[in-house]
Amino acid sequence: MTGTTLDDYTDRYARRVRGMTASEIRALFAVASRPEVVSLAGGAPYIAALPLDAVGEMLGSLAADHGTSTLQYGIGQGTPELRERICEVMALSGIDAAAGASPDDVVVTVGGQQALDLVSRLFLDPGDVVLAEGPTYVGALGAFQSAQAQVVHVAMDDDGLIPSALEAAIADVARSGRRAKFLYTIPTYQNPAGVTLTDARRDQVLDICERAGLLVVEDDPYGQLSFDGEAPLPLRARRREGVFYLSTFSKTFAPGLRVGWILAPHAVREKLVIASESQILCPSAYAQAAVATYLSTMPWREQIKTYREVYRERRDALLEALTDLMPEGTTWTRPSGGLFVWATLPPGLDSKAMMPRAIAARVAYVPGTGFYADGTGGGNMRLNFSFPSPERIREGVRRLAGVMEQDLAMRQVFGAISEVANRRRGQAGSDVPGPDLA
Amino acid sequence: MTGTTLDDYTDRYARRVRGMTASEIRALFAVASRPEVVSLAGGAPYIAALPLDAVGEMLGSLAADHGTSTLQYGIGQGTPELRERICEVMALSGIDAAAGASPDDVVVTVGGQQALDLVSRLFLDPGDVVLAEGPTYVGALGAFQSAQAQVVHVAMDDDGLIPSALEAAIADVARSGRRAKFLYTIPTYQNPAGVTLTDARRDQVLDICERAGLLVVEDDPYGQLSFDGEAPLPLRARRREGVFYLSTFSKTFAPGLRVGWILAPHAVREKLVIASESQILCPSAYAQAAVATYLSTMPWREQIKTYREVYRERRDALLEALTDLMPEGTTWTRPSGGLFVWATLPPGLDSKAMMPRAIAARVAYVPGTGFYADGTGGGNMRLNFSFPSPERIREGVRRLAGVMEQDLAMRQVFGAISEVANRRRGQAGSDVPGPDLA
Repeated sequence: MTGTTLDDYTDRYARRVRGMTASEIRALFAVASRPEVVSLAGGAPYIAALPLDAVGEMLGSLAADHGTSTLQYGIGQGTPELRERICEVMALSGIDAAAGASPDDVVVTVGGQQALDLVSRLFLDPGDVVLAEGPTYVGALGAFQSAQAQVVHVAMDDDGLIPSALEAAIADVARSGRRAKFLYTIPTYQNPAGVTLTDARRDQVLDICERAGLLVVEDDPYGQLSFDGEAPLPLRARRREGVFYLSTFSKTFAPGLRVGWILAPHAVREKLVIASESQILCPSAYAQAAVATYLSTMPWREQIKTYREVYRERRDALLEALTDLMPEGTTWTRPSGGLFVWATLPPGLDSKAMMPRAIAARVAYVPGTGFYADGTGGGNMRLNFSFPSPERIREGVRRLAGVMEQDLAMRQVFGAISEVANRRRGQAGSDVPGPDLA
Repeated sequence: MTGTTLDDYTDRYARRVRGMTASEIRALFAVASRPEVVSLAGGAPYIAALPLDAVGEMLGSLAADHGTSTLQYGIGQGTPELRERICEVMALSGIDAAAGASPDDVVVTVGGQQALDLVSRLFLDPGDVVLAEGPTYVGALGAFQSAQAQVVHVAMDDDGLIPSALEAAIADVARSGRRAKFLYTIPTYQNPAGVTLTDARRDQVLDICERAGLLVVEDDPYGQLSFDGEAPLPLRARRREGVFYLSTFSKTFAPGLRVGWILAPHAVREKLVIASESQILCPSAYAQAAVATYLSTMPWREQIKTYREVYRERRDALLEALTDLMPEGTTWTRPSGGLFVWATLPPGLDSKAMMPRAIAARVAYVPGTGFYADGTGGGNMRLNFSFPSPERIREGVRRLAGVMEQDLAMRQVFGAISEVANRRRGQAGSDVPGPDLA
């Protein structure tokens, strides 16, 4: 049995993502995590804002005093204690008992990613279509790709997903004879775009999906991280039929514990549990006890406020630095919550090609191509503001702006050279494409 | 979108396992976990044997002193620190650097179950065949079923998997035009059978698989829990090509942290990581730090010895109780390690049908049908000895023997009644099947 043969079986797990090889990606990430590099690339919460001593004390006593249960196997759906607490957390966003939320329909997952993967496993057969915002969360693309589904992107503007674009996409898919299984959407403080679906559009989107018989998978990791007033009501708070609600404690508590959840329609909750059991047997009893105890004994609502304040300040720092420093022609979104700003580069710049030069200048970001299934997005980049300090953010943007100015200058020089060369050859002129600076 | 429609999409996740509905299974487990019931049903380690105070102290300081990394996101493959430690653990079983084991080829998983699921995802397409011992681990059956693969069982005897039966199964599958992707085997202290593949047979099995171009997935959660001398060398220590080695800290440390691993052939390790990332993004940084710190600062080799002593005593208690109390015609395996004994009931008894009566008599076990993909195993049951105390084990066996004696007596009575009835009808006689006592 040779490596080549193994490879033949496993094509769909090749890392051909967006044209970078696995070793290139690994090299890039290794470099980006060096302390001298300002990373605007990640999506990491600012864990240092947690009361780590108190959290440590709680975690220690969970093992010392309750180890015979917390260090033991648990059950596939998750502990009743945590599922109760999760309902309290959802109630804060308007998904309460009146909206039909019940601990019995909550399935605890290994972070938000397993929630995505479980829904994908449950519904997607090879060749099925998923509708998703363009751009969308890279991990969702990974889950859909692993299920061998096709992603059809639906355009957004500053008000989020565009309803008419959704209707057009549904019609297109139907015309092509393919089967769309669900709409995957991050309506609030979208990753990576940083935009939020407006109140009015939420009902429109739900109506469109209901008319089309399309399930909705609502991913809401950021909804409670609002900076400028509360977020609009989640889709699941507006409609209980046909909406799967996914969230996680990775952004409001700590990603290192890997605890997320799905609130599922009752009819399929049991199947999600079976799928999860075949995948991981049960979520960590210890991590679940940690989150449940955190929610029952520590001031978690105040902690969310702390995160909001820290991130608001950093968002302001990022927006101000972009305004002050970015080359003309650059535009960006203005998120009212969450972790990310989506930037659009001046024409001619390519965020993926520019990446090695950015790393050399000690700044990192995620090229926009990472967030599309179809390889577009080269004119965009995602900038994170939750992890670096305001000072580091400004320094990062300064370095990034420097790289962009250089790239633009190079384009001009090469453009001028091309023009001269073309004139000499008696050819048409200046609309020759710029050089590939990679 | 109605429940029925959702159901249509998701057939393969119906809980039709072995004829019990989800609610029946849940009810059974809920009852089995009551304190008055002696459960020989689980597979839980005896966590009380851990130094819980010291573990608690360690876990607390991991958050208090290192929370900004342990509570943060990690990387898909697992931390280099833990992968190094895992190589030390494997070296203890003979899978060392000389056998080609390297931290670079270790993928950390969410317990042993995710390891099984990842290998299934990587290699299995719907309709593919997996060869596996009969009986085999119920969670493996779940993973293969979720990949829509077919399981072909290979018979064991007291020396483990029978090589000639393996050859015959490979030939059968080939003749039927199906594609066998791998042999799944638990060679040491098998779950549920409690038998161990002998030294001589290990090389034979490897040769047979190599000749057939069949991958080997070696699952080894119990290998270090030996009671009567060390276990034979794992398959992976004998051959590095074509063998995936899976293990877990669930039996040697604590299942509540959900940390397992795969040692994979280098050619596919990267694809396993990609598959894992699409499933869970990354394993828990906190749980990984917990295991790595446990392995580097606490006497884990002594702890394994403690587990061995506790379980050896309990195995002895179970075997003695079975000898003393079981009705004539009952047989069982004599494991030299691990957690389980596999019992074969006297002819005519049905372990699944008997289950409700056992629960009423306050004893629980897993019916043998749980460990076969094809519904056989009704004449068997799995008995766990790692969790209950020796006294509870003996009491459990006493209760179980009582239920079996009753069932046998009922069979005799019904058999006699049937015989009389048949004689009156002038019919042939006593080979009428007994009543269904369920």
